[in-house]
Amino acid sequence: MPDIHAHRRARLAAVLAERELDAALVTRLVNVRYLTGLASSNAALLLTPEGEGVLATDGRYAVAARQQAADVELVVDRKVAATLTARAASEGARRLAIETHDVTVELHGQLGEAAPETELVPLGRAAEELRTVKDEEETRLLREACAITDRAFADMLAKIRAGLTEREIAFALEARMMEHGAESRSFETIVAGGPNGAKPHHDPTDRPLAVGDLVVMDFGACYGGYHADMTRTVAIGEPAAWQRELYELVARAQRVGRESLRVGADVRDVDSAARDVIKEAGHGEHFSHGLGHGVGLEIHEAPTIGYAATGTLSSGVPVTIEPGVYLPDRGGVRIEDTLVVRDGDPELLTKSTKDLLVL
Amino acid sequence: MPDIHAHRRARLAAVLAERELDAALVTRLVNVRYLTGLASSNAALLLTPEGEGVLATDGRYAVAARQQAADVELVVDRKVAATLTARAASEGARRLAIETHDVTVELHGQLGEAAPETELVPLGRAAEELRTVKDEEETRLLREACAITDRAFADMLAKIRAGLTEREIAFALEARMMEHGAESRSFETIVAGGPNGAKPHHDPTDRPLAVGDLVVMDFGACYGGYHADMTRTVAIGEPAAWQRELYELVARAQRVGRESLRVGADVRDVDSAARDVIKEAGHGEHFSHGLGHGVGLEIHEAPTIGYAATGTLSSGVPVTIEPGVYLPDRGGVRIEDTLVVRDGDPELLTKSTKDLLVL
Repeated sequence: MPDIHAHRRARLAAVLAERELDAALVTRLVNVRYLTGLASSNAALLLTPEGEGVLATDGRYAVAARQQAADVELVVDRKVAATLTARAASEGARRLAIETHDVTVELHGQLGEAAPETELVPLGRAAEELRTVKDEEETRLLREACAITDRAFADMLAKIRAGLTEREIAFALEARMMEHGAESRSFETIVAGGPNGAKPHHDPTDRPLAVGDLVVMDFGACYGGYHADMTRTVAIGEPAAWQRELYELVARAQRVGRESLRVGADVRDVDSAARDVIKEAGHGEHFSHGLGHGVGLEIHEAPTIGYAATGTLSSGVPVTIEPGVYLPDRGGVRIEDTLVVRDGDPELLTKSTKDLLVL
Repeated sequence: MPDIHAHRRARLAAVLAERELDAALVTRLVNVRYLTGLASSNAALLLTPEGEGVLATDGRYAVAARQQAADVELVVDRKVAATLTARAASEGARRLAIETHDVTVELHGQLGEAAPETELVPLGRAAEELRTVKDEEETRLLREACAITDRAFADMLAKIRAGLTEREIAFALEARMMEHGAESRSFETIVAGGPNGAKPHHDPTDRPLAVGDLVVMDFGACYGGYHADMTRTVAIGEPAAWQRELYELVARAQRVGRESLRVGADVRDVDSAARDVIKEAGHGEHFSHGLGHGVGLEIHEAPTIGYAATGTLSSGVPVTIEPGVYLPDRGGVRIEDTLVVRDGDPELLTKSTKDLLVL
């Protein structure tokens, strides 16, 4: 869809014009993809305030670039960033904006050599900021990614039982996502049973699930480049009173978090709304991460919804809401949905039940 | 295995001592994993020439760090690099070596603020150099990763047929690898049928295989953090004469490449040995990438075996040999093994046949 990408480039070009930059060198691969459609492990985009783009990639991606980004000039070369920097200099750029959060100190030196007379100035996260609010096509892809994730979870409910290992469940979840049309998993699936649930980012092991376990499953499908993110915690056999209480606490915090998602809301206030529920129950120190994050072409992107984050929410921004409580040596509970901030209530993309399922 | 990691840290510490550095800040996550055992998406290691290490990671990985890297001091903090830089400064470090190929321009500014009196100097790829030659434990893991990959391919031979789509085959290959014990795929599986084979890095599509296709499959299992890499090209139905000739050409180039893997060999000579076979057949411009690359904790790591690469091979270095010929609009052939350079003949880790299979 060249129209969409040309439109996105025009929006970034307007930022360049406003900031009186001669050109921008976009090197973050996900930003290059957003602005051109080309998904490559080695590519960069040179963009002028007039909206003219030059895409560089190496021989492996030349055919794909000609197909997917037919409306920008293509340069085939391995040293994509240095080549485009030299090109910018040869066209008279005196101030070239670079993504200093992506360009390494080493590459920065190479760009300086490629264009000794050109001043390299920080572009900042201009492309990421554009990416925060999703257009209709992006939202459609993310909605589908979340639907695939929901379907995979539904398929698994009949299968999860004591004796299966964390790895077997993780693999089966990923297999179901692929069957339902995912192009890949969004990230390495987390399945954490019993005491392993105390680790928020536990890698699945060969530990079999046992009766009495809470099982935290964090997974998502990637579809059209867009990343779903979902967590559910289920009980294997009738849960103990403490497990049920913990679950209800996290579910309540999660609901409060979702209900705080409003256009204009401060991300820190959204975090505190949910966090306060957990703190009041005496588990403040057992909720060791932020409440949520944006999703899109990356599984973690702006905005961060956390206790140290800043900013407010806009309509059309997809985020996760994922409080958790982790009790060392005992286990944990996390519940996570992906939603889109809207005027009024947010749009819930993750539709699986949040009742405690006893399997 | 704390012994292994302490031993690796001691080797890097010796480099620091020799270069009279006060300390090194290791930020590349794969290097942190190599040196501590901790696989984390946010971690850094401060190392002194005396071999003392301080590991920093955030709350999500604190439990894992205490288990997997029990023999280094742990600091739990989100801003891992800045925190360790301040720590180095507080302990009197005047020259702190950083990985300038990993540290971004933005982070570099933050480190400067964290330790204004400390000079940040380039460490270079010291950790990557240590990682090039694999120890026995690493080779064992890689051997197993390649064996899993071979088994998955063997399982698929009975299943691949006209009508199946590229995505279905890619998914089935990945599923077989997981069943055989892979912890994940090494990279996104490539399945490229018919004309799609002209793209070396083709993403699998919903195109069904058809009689008359050559099908390039590039895939690998990751096991214990180590990445297998293998490519086979098969024919769907009896191949045309040009397809058989192309296959035989690539197979010959691949054999010549493997036979050039000797201790002390220049990587460029290894590349040319195979490339010359393809050039002499008039297909030089259709072999658009390097001959091979190191594998280990990363799917692509040192050494590069290419026409613009430098360096010589040592015993114990695993590499791929993967020549390919890509004919626009017609298709391609690539054949790839993972091998370990040894005194005498290299050790072949990929054991699947390289005869042209007609399915």
